[in-house]
Amino acid sequence: MIGEFDLIRRIQKNANLLCPNDPAVLLGIGDDSAATLSSRGNALLTTTDMLLEKTHFDLAFSSFFQIGYKALSVNLSDIAAMGGTPRFYLVSLGLTGKESVRDIDALYRGMNEASHELSISLQSPCHLIGGNTARSHAGLSISITLLGEVPKKEMVTRSTATPGDFIYVTGTLGDASAGLELLKKNLRKGGFRALPHKHLMPKARVQEGRLLAKKKIPSAMIDLSDGLSSDLLHITDQSGVGAQLACATFPISETLKRYAKTMGTNWYDYALHGGEEYELLFCVPEKNRDRLEKLIHHKAIDARCIGKILPKKHGVLVTGIDGDVYKLKPSGYDHFRQGMI
Amino acid sequence: MIGEFDLIRRIQKNANLLCPNDPAVLLGIGDDSAATLSSRGNALLTTTDMLLEKTHFDLAFSSFFQIGYKALSVNLSDIAAMGGTPRFYLVSLGLTGKESVRDIDALYRGMNEASHELSISLQSPCHLIGGNTARSHAGLSISITLLGEVPKKEMVTRSTATPGDFIYVTGTLGDASAGLELLKKNLRKGGFRALPHKHLMPKARVQEGRLLAKKKIPSAMIDLSDGLSSDLLHITDQSGVGAQLACATFPISETLKRYAKTMGTNWYDYALHGGEEYELLFCVPEKNRDRLEKLIHHKAIDARCIGKILPKKHGVLVTGIDGDVYKLKPSGYDHFRQGMI
Repeated sequence: MIGEFDLIRRIQKNANLLCPNDPAVLLGIGDDSAATLSSRGNALLTTTDMLLEKTHFDLAFSSFFQIGYKALSVNLSDIAAMGGTPRFYLVSLGLTGKESVRDIDALYRGMNEASHELSISLQSPCHLIGGNTARSHAGLSISITLLGEVPKKEMVTRSTATPGDFIYVTGTLGDASAGLELLKKNLRKGGFRALPHKHLMPKARVQEGRLLAKKKIPSAMIDLSDGLSSDLLHITDQSGVGAQLACATFPISETLKRYAKTMGTNWYDYALHGGEEYELLFCVPEKNRDRLEKLIHHKAIDARCIGKILPKKHGVLVTGIDGDVYKLKPSGYDHFRQGMI
Repeated sequence: MIGEFDLIRRIQKNANLLCPNDPAVLLGIGDDSAATLSSRGNALLTTTDMLLEKTHFDLAFSSFFQIGYKALSVNLSDIAAMGGTPRFYLVSLGLTGKESVRDIDALYRGMNEASHELSISLQSPCHLIGGNTARSHAGLSISITLLGEVPKKEMVTRSTATPGDFIYVTGTLGDASAGLELLKKNLRKGGFRALPHKHLMPKARVQEGRLLAKKKIPSAMIDLSDGLSSDLLHITDQSGVGAQLACATFPISETLKRYAKTMGTNWYDYALHGGEEYELLFCVPEKNRDRLEKLIHHKAIDARCIGKILPKKHGVLVTGIDGDVYKLKPSGYDHFRQGMI
């Protein structure tokens, strides 16, 4: 049996064991606040994302290790979408009291795994520097704040896409949302394992985001958290442009194609509207396209062109696999879809 | 009726209206991450605290404005305890769907009020720069991350108290915990209003913390969130020292004295073990004591000496009002008092 302060000491000890000394960390876990140094000419990036039981994860089919991994990965993805390098993170835990010490250790091991696996280099994982724990009278909640850095001149935002830019996306689309469907239906059909895995342990594209920013390739970038249709609209809204996507060019895994066929559904619905993919969507001006295609050819990055940025007056369009063009409606995840009073 | 993205736009609009342009904010709400600049020679302070319904606040007796105010204040208090200047904050909201848009506006107005009222100067409130919102299937949750700055050489930690230092505390002790008791018992006895007010809207000692750090007066500092007995032990544990407090010297409000008398309880129990006071506890070497006493005399700071740091071998002691000396047991708030498996 351990109490709050023992728990904090345990987290602190594990954090210190896992992370080598970083001269930029003046003060880690154990004081009122963490203290770090930021180097000159760099913008400090800060993002925060909260994972709530039943909303973002279900203990019925997620392990504590997977929840920890995903919690950090979704935050890493936001830094990736700015072209930044993740540096430090803080964790707020709301614990129900049903968790064992073993569960909480696994949660932090999952975060540590994501930090190492998804970092820019093995030498520089991002470090746990603080947080807090409290009793939750409702479900388990994990709120992570992630600090990162990016040279001011390399930062990529959502608001700078220009008509004529090509729209690219990393990895494949739709796997995570098909995976969630599979988990919810409690289907464990052989051969589809990659789909739930992508939902449970999404890999933030930190290296890809940093590489693109360093090479100054994208005009605008966002990570796919709400779903392609919603997230593309964030870019077009904030940049004041239109866009057209072509379904036939979407990168779709063979597994998703087989799954959709088995279920009698359409793979492009998962690809267009499925949330939590954590791939990067980025816009590339014509003049940078050759450099990007060379990186793709040399397998430095896995990305594919799926459309083009248009002048605002065209709106946001999709060419379906039947060749028909229709208006893109955002059907990605909206937490308050039913509206608020 | 508004959806998630309308809600975010509303929060963004209000944040921009409330905060003048700050050249250190390269990118505020609306992208994947906020981007700020930190000046050279300063340590970047980062703290995060989560407020959960039923654990930290009760909608039965807290307004949304008060919850917002308190949520920011408890984070400001952590930066105050390091001697820092609060700069930016990010808010993660878990909403149940029962909140109206008016409620959420009030929540952010409460945070904005705390930011202005408790800042170092009226000219430099700390700014809302990001966050996220999600549906909570349990209670309302608010997680704030606060960034601050402090010149490296002025940062005050918990781990540097030395035997011979005098222990000081700002303001009064025990009011907030008596106030919570009063609210829980639904007693609205006239004349005690200051007590629940301190529980509902604690004022972080940001100006005091900064003044003390700038004048390099304290050897160690902490804010009283768990309660005097628990928080003093954080200082003695981390500094490797002992301590002795004298109950007779505690700063106690007349209201608390009257309340304790009415209830047939002891005011020193509230003072020693009551949580959420958000006063500063700090240790002062003999050589700095005159300078501090002058500041107190000129009303630049409201603080009082309540004890002394001793060598570790003495342990942590309290002289009761009866003159007896006993060992201090931590009875402040521990979220996992019943222990974990």
